[in-house]
Amino acid sequence: MPEQPELTIQGWGPRPAGASAEQGPAGLDAVLTKAARRHLTRELGWTPRSTPPVPVDEIRLSPSRLPEEVRSALADLLGADNVRTDRGSRLRRAGGKSYLDLLRRRAGDASDAPDAVVLPGTTEETAALLALCSARGVVVVPFGGGTSVVGGLAGVDPDDRPTIAVDLARMSSVRALDVPSSLVTVGPGMRGPALEEALAREGLAFGHLPQSWEFATLGGYAATRSAGQASTGVGRFDELVAGLTLATPTGVLELGHPPASAAGPDLLGLALGSEGSLGVITELTLRVRPKPPASSYEGWSFRSWAAGLATLQRLARHDLLPDVVRLSDADETRTNLLMASGPGAKALRGSLRARRHGAGCMLVVGWEGVPDLVRARTRAAASLLREGGAVRIGRRVGASWRKHRFDAPYLRDRLMDGGLLVETLETAATWTALPTVYDATRRALQDALTRDGRRPLVLSHLSHGYATGASLYLTVIADRDDDLSMQQWLGAKRAATDALLTAGGTLTHHHAVGADHRPWLEREIGPLGVEVLRAVKERLDPNGICNPGVLLPD
Amino acid sequence: MPEQPELTIQGWGPRPAGASAEQGPAGLDAVLTKAARRHLTRELGWTPRSTPPVPVDEIRLSPSRLPEEVRSALADLLGADNVRTDRGSRLRRAGGKSYLDLLRRRAGDASDAPDAVVLPGTTEETAALLALCSARGVVVVPFGGGTSVVGGLAGVDPDDRPTIAVDLARMSSVRALDVPSSLVTVGPGMRGPALEEALAREGLAFGHLPQSWEFATLGGYAATRSAGQASTGVGRFDELVAGLTLATPTGVLELGHPPASAAGPDLLGLALGSEGSLGVITELTLRVRPKPPASSYEGWSFRSWAAGLATLQRLARHDLLPDVVRLSDADETRTNLLMASGPGAKALRGSLRARRHGAGCMLVVGWEGVPDLVRARTRAAASLLREGGAVRIGRRVGASWRKHRFDAPYLRDRLMDGGLLVETLETAATWTALPTVYDATRRALQDALTRDGRRPLVLSHLSHGYATGASLYLTVIADRDDDLSMQQWLGAKRAATDALLTAGGTLTHHHAVGADHRPWLEREIGPLGVEVLRAVKERLDPNGICNPGVLLPD
Repeated sequence: MPEQPELTIQGWGPRPAGASAEQGPAGLDAVLTKAARRHLTRELGWTPRSTPPVPVDEIRLSPSRLPEEVRSALADLLGADNVRTDRGSRLRRAGGKSYLDLLRRRAGDASDAPDAVVLPGTTEETAALLALCSARGVVVVPFGGGTSVVGGLAGVDPDDRPTIAVDLARMSSVRALDVPSSLVTVGPGMRGPALEEALAREGLAFGHLPQSWEFATLGGYAATRSAGQASTGVGRFDELVAGLTLATPTGVLELGHPPASAAGPDLLGLALGSEGSLGVITELTLRVRPKPPASSYEGWSFRSWAAGLATLQRLARHDLLPDVVRLSDADETRTNLLMASGPGAKALRGSLRARRHGAGCMLVVGWEGVPDLVRARTRAAASLLREGGAVRIGRRVGASWRKHRFDAPYLRDRLMDGGLLVETLETAATWTALPTVYDATRRALQDALTRDGRRPLVLSHLSHGYATGASLYLTVIADRDDDLSMQQWLGAKRAATDALLTAGGTLTHHHAVGADHRPWLEREIGPLGVEVLRAVKERLDPNGICNPGVLLPD
Repeated sequence: MPEQPELTIQGWGPRPAGASAEQGPAGLDAVLTKAARRHLTRELGWTPRSTPPVPVDEIRLSPSRLPEEVRSALADLLGADNVRTDRGSRLRRAGGKSYLDLLRRRAGDASDAPDAVVLPGTTEETAALLALCSARGVVVVPFGGGTSVVGGLAGVDPDDRPTIAVDLARMSSVRALDVPSSLVTVGPGMRGPALEEALAREGLAFGHLPQSWEFATLGGYAATRSAGQASTGVGRFDELVAGLTLATPTGVLELGHPPASAAGPDLLGLALGSEGSLGVITELTLRVRPKPPASSYEGWSFRSWAAGLATLQRLARHDLLPDVVRLSDADETRTNLLMASGPGAKALRGSLRARRHGAGCMLVVGWEGVPDLVRARTRAAASLLREGGAVRIGRRVGASWRKHRFDAPYLRDRLMDGGLLVETLETAATWTALPTVYDATRRALQDALTRDGRRPLVLSHLSHGYATGASLYLTVIADRDDDLSMQQWLGAKRAATDALLTAGGTLTHHHAVGADHRPWLEREIGPLGVEVLRAVKERLDPNGICNPGVLLPD
């Protein structure tokens, strides 16, 4: 199996070798410009302080509860090397990378770690281990890159049975490539960088680039309905899956018929977004494309959020949205500009002020494809952008965004070291509902996190545009309540989720349900919808061993 | 409710008032040029003869088996006018418009007619009637336009319970329009022409144009995963559904969250293609678009089918496929050219011969959208078409195709009057598998329908292009075996379906499963896939009253 970097136990990184952006040194000063530090201190009522994680060897881990007879049966099935109960293996598969996960791990708590880690090599081995675990009452949590930010790897079981993580790292290579049909078949443990590298050798590309791209796996994208930063042009991950193999405790499903089929309800769409609750994805067939010969990224600025929304909506209706489209609100724009260092950033701030866009909203757009079409699309979009009041601020902003596109989770670790709460949440809504969803969610977060003269910064951007609407991504930064850090965020998250659902947003646009959103799933799909999912789960996983802590409410 | 034309009991039509093509007079001579008649006679070993349907008043219909207490309960629920057991109402909802359906009806057999027809006006009434029928053991078959060509309205029940058709004609209007979000909400009984008319008043269009467009309903498109002639550009119908209400015997599901959601498995995709087997679709929210300001349709010719396939595959990979793309094979091209009358057709035949394309394959392409982009896309595609050996034969071919795009089912009635078997079937495959699927399906049909020196004409075209593959649509014409007309087609259909599945085609690309394909569903989705669908059906329709004759094998 190819070597793939593993995430640290208490945070994001290490930066993969050869990654585009430089690895910054640790410490708050290294990641925050003076202006940014001043800005955050003033806005948040934050006192910078040192709140580092406990040393890794002080993390508390309970002894493995996996019965020896099960361990030995799994070893017979998979080989002794592929059944691991050592401390390092278990710690590395404990939960994901949500703010709550990081709080736990940084505080030295790994009580949610699996009792063992197994590494199947084939669909057949995966199906056999699921059948075995179903018979022996062992809970199974699939583990790809470990990047879930919604508690997707929670491993919580109402019956408190022993739990194993099924690590998919041994199934991480290209299995077939059909160039004329633009299809590649891969193992679920493969990651984006390795896939792009393999495809580039054939002049192809995949183009799914979420923020977790350096670490997340293709199987994970499928299980959570991920969307990449270029999803407006390339498509959501679920739209790029042409076929999928799902191993379940009762058998194997081979789903999907490219290019398309009218043979009844879509079972592939049931496996996508199933978050390990129906079984383990063991193979994926994905749609690829020729490596785009031309690309063009640039920045624009609107004087107001409302003008930006209205203009993007117009582009969307006329099918003129760029492949990448990200509109930051005024708070996010101001913060991003203060975070950026160097003379270029300073000049840009000055130029925006001079054009009376000092409190404006930055838009990053990107086009990729055949040169003639990129040119025609760029021109058509630029004309609507200008009509909407936007001014072009050039390619430098586009280049800078591309360079730093995967940086935020690294930055979060450093901000947490300094006593800050940092978390993101996302939703999507129709163009008509978006302004209300934006206002309601921001207000809920601001109200919930304001206390004793301290208040949060809520930074928002629109991304992932569709003809019918777009997603909204919010980053929350606040002075952490060190005594009640979990409760502080849980309260804000609850208020924000209630608010966005009431305003017409969806529970999640691309982070999935996990443990964190499952109390609200019934509000999204209705009680009968939940019952339908339960009926499917009962058929495929009658003993409820498949990731019982996520998706479906108790 | 708006007036909508109803199909005749024994065939297609009458042509809706204001339709673009003229209503031809009845009779073979009126629809076949002399050259076409000579061609068919020679190719098929066919002796033109008169085999008209029996008069409508001689069609045999059994007395209604609906118990009086149920009829009266339904009348209490829906109003007496909306519960009908008269001969005309029942005959008009007997089956669909497959060749087998037409054979039955033309022979005077309506033994598959429903025992009554009910017309609910709301989701609530539909849910209530389903609960009532579930409690009383009455089978329910949803009825939209009655255009199914795969036995989707079969009404067959293993327990031989009384059956009612739920006609959706009273739910056929626009319920909401959200222009900024490009969304329209409609009743399931609405038809394409009425929707386009309503949208055109707002400068909008929908653009789903299958051959059944004049009669089929939007609910029917959703229930069967229809694809329109411009699906390459506009999208399949299932891709255009943003939300849907499904009334089931156990409750109502509200599905779909535009623009997109990552909140678990896709339940909307379970309702799409459910063919009435899970309940009745009572509302749809659809994605619309601004009326395209520019359109361009034209014909091209390839010397060979292989060259055409290779070139379209190249266009597809580079995302340069036109919105409409239809490549006829040599047999279909020759037949179409002989069917066409007038000096234009004659000149075209001559010009193709002169360019040594006399045995070539015709391609119809169409682009719609913003003028600059139509121009850029047309130019880019034209350059690849020329590189692939195609010659441009002009806009006249495009205009003629558009004029006659809905004609085939009218023509079929006349050909059946003259003693011919006429039926279509369709599949889809990856670009890599397409040539094999084409060869295998044609050969199976040719072998099965050759007897006593008579042989079929199999006319094929590729349509509905995707990056990963395309659909293949076959029209079969043969001298009818008047003694064993059903068996003649059933044998050919069985052979063709086995062959296309073995070669890697899908069971159906846009006609759905119905009664005709259900013996093969398990080959498409596997035994466990069938079990998953059964689990869903049992949860929503525990007494199995929802269209039990379709989709799921017995």
